[in-house]
Amino acid sequence: MKLVEDLTNDPAGLSGANISKFFQHLGNFDWNHIKATRYKDEEGSWKGVSRRVFTGETGESPQFHVRYFEIDKDGYSTLEHHQHEHVVVVMRGQGHAIVGERRLELKFGDVLYVAPNEIHQFSNGKEEPFGFLCIVNADRDRPVPVELGAESSCR
Amino acid sequence: MKLVEDLTNDPAGLSGANISKFFQHLGNFDWNHIKATRYKDEEGSWKGVSRRVFTGETGESPQFHVRYFEIDKDGYSTLEHHQHEHVVVVMRGQGHAIVGERRLELKFGDVLYVAPNEIHQFSNGKEEPFGFLCIVNADRDRPVPVELGAESSCR
Repeated sequence: MKLVEDLTNDPAGLSGANISKFFQHLGNFDWNHIKATRYKDEEGSWKGVSRRVFTGETGESPQFHVRYFEIDKDGYSTLEHHQHEHVVVVMRGQGHAIVGERRLELKFGDVLYVAPNEIHQFSNGKEEPFGFLCIVNADRDRPVPVELGAESSCR
Repeated sequence: MKLVEDLTNDPAGLSGANISKFFQHLGNFDWNHIKATRYKDEEGSWKGVSRRVFTGETGESPQFHVRYFEIDKDGYSTLEHHQHEHVVVVMRGQGHAIVGERRLELKFGDVLYVAPNEIHQFSNGKEEPFGFLCIVNADRDRPVPVELGAESSCR
């Protein structure tokens, strides 16, 4: 039996093949072969959020995508709703979620299921980045932002 | 805006309704409203593995299920294959995965994608439990165990 530390030493693993892949955590919430990208192209509704995609954009076949989002100090995601569900698992730091009319404190290991069409937003008021996995259906609708007004006080 | 710490204070959240749910991490990899169950009914092919299901068995609608598995010292999951994919994210301790002909060391934050039909097994040789999220399609085939023989030396 061959022993390797990283299945993705095979460059085919990075070029869109549906083969097993290993994304090693290098520490400090950085991963081998995974690049942080912008949360969204459009500005204005969010601040200080990055996005990493582990599964879903490089040839994998599951009916779900696994991503890691990180929110910097004083950052927040868009207040929005959509038909598709979120499952969030906190990996780093602490933050808040608005879900419908509720506001939750989130810390390591907490798991949140956001049901279809529920208005939601994530934010970080601490120094340390607030990082969480966010799992969604592969086939999903586009988010609809909520106009800030009465809601802006909830952040 | 109402502030609550736990969406599942609403008992409807536990009775199979497709509403938002919050599973608070109580520490030591135990969660509010989540019970550990047996990994599999059948004995023999595995040892010391427990299973917790966050999403998929209580009325949620996504096309995926989110579970947490924990393997005790010297425990191991079944050496098996199936058509459906796994995405594994390590939350606790350290362990090993056999994936095809490879053997990987896994620790906190590592992410592993197991492609369709790849033979795989997880094991723990340390004192601390080895715990990981395992995300799968909601609609999936049954695992096929691999008879131990030549492979048994790989554990």
